Amino acid sequence: MSRFVSSRDLLPRVLAGEVPAVARLLSRAEAADPECRETLGEIYGRAGKAHVVGITGVPGSGKSTMVAVLAAHLRKAGHKVGIIAIDPSSPYSGGAIMGDRIRMSDLASDEGVYIRSMATRGALGGMARATLDAVDILDVAGFDYILIETVGVGQDEVEIASASHTTLVVSAPGLGDEVQAIKAGILEIADVHVVSKSDRPDARSTVSDLKQMLTLGMATDAKTAWRPPVIATSSLKGEGFDELVSALGQHKAFLEGSDAGRARVRRIAEFRMIKTAEELLRRRFKESSAGRVAAVADRLAAREISPYVAGEQLLDGIGA
Amino acid sequence: MSRFVSSRDLLPRVLAGEVPAVARLLSRAEAADPECRETLGEIYGRAGKAHVVGITGVPGSGKSTMVAVLAAHLRKAGHKVGIIAIDPSSPYSGGAIMGDRIRMSDLASDEGVYIRSMATRGALGGMARATLDAVDILDVAGFDYILIETVGVGQDEVEIASASHTTLVVSAPGLGDEVQAIKAGILEIADVHVVSKSDRPDARSTVSDLKQMLTLGMATDAKTAWRPPVIATSSLKGEGFDELVSALGQHKAFLEGSDAGRARVRRIAEFRMIKTAEELLRRRFKESSAGRVAAVADRLAAREISPYVAGEQLLDGIGA
Repeated sequence: MSRFVSSRDLLPRVLAGEVPAVARLLSRAEAADPECRETLGEIYGRAGKAHVVGITGVPGSGKSTMVAVLAAHLRKAGHKVGIIAIDPSSPYSGGAIMGDRIRMSDLASDEGVYIRSMATRGALGGMARATLDAVDILDVAGFDYILIETVGVGQDEVEIASASHTTLVVSAPGLGDEVQAIKAGILEIADVHVVSKSDRPDARSTVSDLKQMLTLGMATDAKTAWRPPVIATSSLKGEGFDELVSALGQHKAFLEGSDAGRARVRRIAEFRMIKTAEELLRRRFKESSAGRVAAVADRLAAREISPYVAGEQLLDGIGA
Repeated sequence: MSRFVSSRDLLPRVLAGEVPAVARLLSRAEAADPECRETLGEIYGRAGKAHVVGITGVPGSGKSTMVAVLAAHLRKAGHKVGIIAIDPSSPYSGGAIMGDRIRMSDLASDEGVYIRSMATRGALGGMARATLDAVDILDVAGFDYILIETVGVGQDEVEIASASHTTLVVSAPGLGDEVQAIKAGILEIADVHVVSKSDRPDARSTVSDLKQMLTLGMATDAKTAWRPPVIATSSLKGEGFDELVSALGQHKAFLEGSDAGRARVRRIAEFRMIKTAEELLRRRFKESSAGRVAAVADRLAAREISPYVAGEQLLDGIGA
């Protein structure tokens, strides 16, 4: 495997679900290797069968463990499961800090589960375009469920809802006030709520608080008939996961063939298009940094022009 | 004050530091009111005197309280302090969830401190362009230090370093493993480290862990002579803040007139230009959503074209 194999030549092996080929192509997509661009385009055209589940929740909510147990249960139900873990950005080294995810090692020996950690690269990238490419690659490699686990709160959590068919928000009992307040910001994007650590005595009140907030209309989507369920799970005892697997299946069935499902697919495509355009914008800016665009940045830094004018000039100057 | 006053007419009052005028213009900037665009451009041209400090750290690190106590100490040292608190995005309501920041109420009666909560609006905005406009408004209104407090981890934390002169990363003793692992992702962007809650007995080991990580070269910027200090503070006891105020002043002095300082100003301008261009890109996309661009999104959703092609077409179609 040390000899260079073109992405085009890797493609049939990816389509056959061969894990080493999948891993190699994922690495090239993450590195934004131009050599794989055309192959990624072809893969995008073939993708669209997998069900993409975005999983988010505040630090300390037990997300990673929950994802590992969920994957095992989906696997038991006969599904192939891909997991993409988006790690906190390391802007200067570009590496994935939580690269070794010990908790997931139990799954590593199963060929029906593939786990990939990815860094959200770069100061301006947000959820990386590479993450979206990785979803396609795992999709055409035959994974039925693709779980994207994001870390933390903020923009990443909002974006995950724009990239997923089903958004799963994990809450946990006993987190501090500050953490709970942040949680409120991501409640509205949930299609399915999970209260993890249900073995704890205070989990019951977290479940009822959550249900009450949902009843107050804070987080129900009036435009659709879907009402986000609240499911209590215990990763420790393995409880609640059959119910969770069933809820994911119900939401998948709800979307299939419905207007809500079509709207979601369209929303994902719009998100994808804008993210790609933004990456191209930044790339073109970088490439032209010796030229006219650099002069615009200089004038902005010197406060000779306004940000609005600079933005217009950047867009018009390198958009054409 | 209920009669409409144009942004142009508000400007002299903003420049005189009149808080009601500042508040009104901030609201217009946040609402992206086109009426204030020209005035914001003029304000940008006059700004550049304030020292902008980005403050970040994981949930539970005691950031908000630390910021309030820091503001009080900066005030005592004779500075006017503006605080911009960026709250977690509420994508559908667009509101700031933590709008009432009780802990900051002690400062609210002091005219030399102005506090503003802002939502990071929209699914695709990241750190809002409005936040950057707010920095300018507070700058020309005479605030010497502008503290931007971000919530959580992820892209927001990476972006804060691109928008600030000094980036302050808050750590705290006794947070869980998951939280600490996340922390590692934002260590590298720090110009100044704060270990909050130094009154806790386990704070000492947090300080020494942090110093050890810095010594290992994980987070020192080899290109400059600045070595990020680690400062222990106790918001409870008010300890460590004189040292922190002094460290901020030292970093400010380090940047002034140096190549590192000029590079940072240039980096902030580039960030500003790209963020503004991205906002324009999204706005143009929205405005043209009935036309040709919508057809591109449709073709992408139908997987007839690749994301790369769609991104190119979006950029070229509405960039010109």
